[in-house]
Amino acid sequence: MTTVGILGGGQLARMMALAGAPLGLRFLVMDTSAEACAGQFAPMVVGDYRDEQALGEFASRVDVATFDFENVPAESARWLADRVPVFPNPRALAIAQDRLAEKTLFRDLGIPVPAFATVDSREELEAAIAEVGAPSILKTRRLGYDGKGQFRIRVAADAQAAWEALGPQAASVGLILEAFVPFERELSVVAARARDGGFVAWPLTENWHVDGVLSASLAPAAVEGGLARTAIEHARRLAEAMDYVGVFALELFCRDGGLLANELAPRVHNSGHWTIEGSETSQFENHLRAVLGLPLGDTRMVGHACMLNWIGEMPDPAMLLAQAGGHWHDYGKTSRPGRKVGHATLRAPTPEGLVAALESTGRALGRGGQVDPVVARLRGA
Amino acid sequence: MTTVGILGGGQLARMMALAGAPLGLRFLVMDTSAEACAGQFAPMVVGDYRDEQALGEFASRVDVATFDFENVPAESARWLADRVPVFPNPRALAIAQDRLAEKTLFRDLGIPVPAFATVDSREELEAAIAEVGAPSILKTRRLGYDGKGQFRIRVAADAQAAWEALGPQAASVGLILEAFVPFERELSVVAARARDGGFVAWPLTENWHVDGVLSASLAPAAVEGGLARTAIEHARRLAEAMDYVGVFALELFCRDGGLLANELAPRVHNSGHWTIEGSETSQFENHLRAVLGLPLGDTRMVGHACMLNWIGEMPDPAMLLAQAGGHWHDYGKTSRPGRKVGHATLRAPTPEGLVAALESTGRALGRGGQVDPVVARLRGA
Ligand SMILES: Nc1ncnc2c1ncn2[C@@H]1O[C@H](COP(=O)(O)OP(=O)(O)O)[C@@H](O)[C@H]1O
Ligand SMILES: Nc1ncnc2c1ncn2[C@@H]1O[C@H](COP(=O)(O)OP(=O)(O)O)[C@@H](O)[C@H]1O
Ligand SMILES: [Mg+2]
Ligand SMILES: [Mg+2]
Repeated sequence: MTTVGILGGGQLARMMALAGAPLGLRFLVMDTSAEACAGQFAPMVVGDYRDEQALGEFASRVDVATFDFENVPAESARWLADRVPVFPNPRALAIAQDRLAEKTLFRDLGIPVPAFATVDSREELEAAIAEVGAPSILKTRRLGYDGKGQFRIRVAADAQAAWEALGPQAASVGLILEAFVPFERELSVVAARARDGGFVAWPLTENWHVDGVLSASLAPAAVEGGLARTAIEHARRLAEAMDYVGVFALELFCRDGGLLANELAPRVHNSGHWTIEGSETSQFENHLRAVLGLPLGDTRMVGHACMLNWIGEMPDPAMLLAQAGGHWHDYGKTSRPGRKVGHATLRAPTPEGLVAALESTGRALGRGGQVDPVVARLRGA
Repeated sequence: MTTVGILGGGQLARMMALAGAPLGLRFLVMDTSAEACAGQFAPMVVGDYRDEQALGEFASRVDVATFDFENVPAESARWLADRVPVFPNPRALAIAQDRLAEKTLFRDLGIPVPAFATVDSREELEAAIAEVGAPSILKTRRLGYDGKGQFRIRVAADAQAAWEALGPQAASVGLILEAFVPFERELSVVAARARDGGFVAWPLTENWHVDGVLSASLAPAAVEGGLARTAIEHARRLAEAMDYVGVFALELFCRDGGLLANELAPRVHNSGHWTIEGSETSQFENHLRAVLGLPLGDTRMVGHACMLNWIGEMPDPAMLLAQAGGHWHDYGKTSRPGRKVGHATLRAPTPEGLVAALESTGRALGRGGQVDPVVARLRGA
């Protein structure tokens, strides 16, 4: 009987536990909140990740540890890794936690990135704008997620406002200025690397964000094969460079037919939720297989899939459940503005079937705005 | 937040809880053993089903109750139904618990059954053999499962041995003599009926038993459409007669192109486990949807599927996991001879792909005997 420890008890940990049960696994989740939604289906240790006593209890009860939450302090990950196998390794986690380290690695590996410059002071911000140009985005290097910790600089004169918004965090989490990319599409590669170096990737996913938060994902992305192969090669090179074990996502911008790497998520990823129904093996199961040294599962598509995120509160499930190919995922969370509380995946045997399902879902739930860009893409717009 | 109570905490309850989590449900499982495998993923009340205090605690903590275990005493089900909604209803449960009541209902509804006669004494056994003939099978009316509580009568002279084997149970659970059916195939209909009377059935499944225990299931069964329609009509008529709500299975023998009803399982069923991967909506999810009054989900196939039961102990998972389309289900139980400890489902886009997957699985796991009859059927034998 193997117990997998998961640091962080949100929906990722929850879906991981649900995917791992059929593998005969047990789980122990550590979170700072006793209300963490994974705790509804797995036992928990409640405590701060820096609390060595809580972390020690966690370590003593698990055979291997992994993450639902990418911002577990790197020192805590290292402390844990001295006691129990931890995947992905703490170095990979540390790189992915820092936009500067991650973009530097991209560039070192020959993976194209938007222009960027580090910013530690008001003066460096001016220098960075001179170098990177405008429009650009000032971001915190660490702890940003769902578009939080970002300020859009349209013209150089926005520097002061940007500094007022994020300058106070420069000392604690660092800042980075990135060129704004007027992308045509956002894409992600969700991939898994095994302990023995084996590597698999799911078909490329196209993603739509609203206010920096993922709104919809479509798989397979309607891109030509060469682009998909390049994206997957980037992911493979990154995984090898970090000796990464487990599932991760590489977010990419597509512009003028070329790719620019945006960021790397060292964990199962929202843009891979469609794999639960839309692929032969889900990202959650393959992450566990990788972590446990089991063979990686087949990543081929089962039909065509679109995931829709539910932000803030769950819609009424009845209509979606009545939709053939509609699959519901309620994370068991309480409603809160901006919070990811669930998602739905629509699966259909053909792109035309997916269009029909999206249109009727959009109408029935009053969410035309959420489904329209996906429908337009499927129609070849 | 809705909590579903499940009486019985075996693999059926476990898979139901795993299927219900994405619907935002919580679960409470009641079982006589604290080791029940559903308890690994759901909180439990441990107690005897006749213990009104334990049952009362269970009732006070759930919004609706259902069954993993069909032999919960009918009185306990009725006691519970006075306090909380219970699906399926206790009358349907009581019918399905008694081979005599169930076969009588089949016959009353015009559903063909093997000849049968009730047996309460040694003399009645003689009379029953005279009426039903030999070969025949003496079975306990209640509490039989996985071929237990059955004695095969090849010739009339076996009566004495049959009586010695099962006579002692005549007073407590009752006995029934059934004509032995030299069937060509065993089939099952797994179906769901909603609170509002809506009815769906999965494609017909063909089943192979070894020593009375399910060994393999294939879906869709390779039978002509008229037979499948008749089988599903039988199931629908039964469900309506019992005002059944939830998933159930109707087991049928196929002989000379005709159908004879064998028994009804008032719960999700081993021959429906393939629906987890092989169908748009699993039997576990549709059972919960029915019980909760949600719309029933689509039952169409996703590919072709074969389920293989693991009895006694789990094989090494690595080979099956390396098989494209191989899905593993370890119930988290300890090994024990004859115990259902897990299953695997192979899913493939075509029957030919399924043959290939079955053959390589059979070879790699040394289980040719288990896969051969399925392969032969798929090859049209
Ligand atoms: N350099 C950029 N150019 C254009 N859009 C961007 C850029 N950086 C971020 N975005 C937009 O904001 C979203 C969130 O930013 P991201 O850097 O991925 O941070 P997070 O960690 O919050 O996901 C992106 O998915 C994209 O839509
Ligand atoms: N009347 C019969 N004729 C032929 N085989 C039978 C008969 N009854 C049972 N069997 C065989 O034994 C298996 C188990 O019997 P069943 O009545 O379904 O009891 P259980 O409740 O144990 O499943 C059946 O699936 C079938 O293979
Ligand atoms: Mg991002
Ligand atoms: Mg049976």
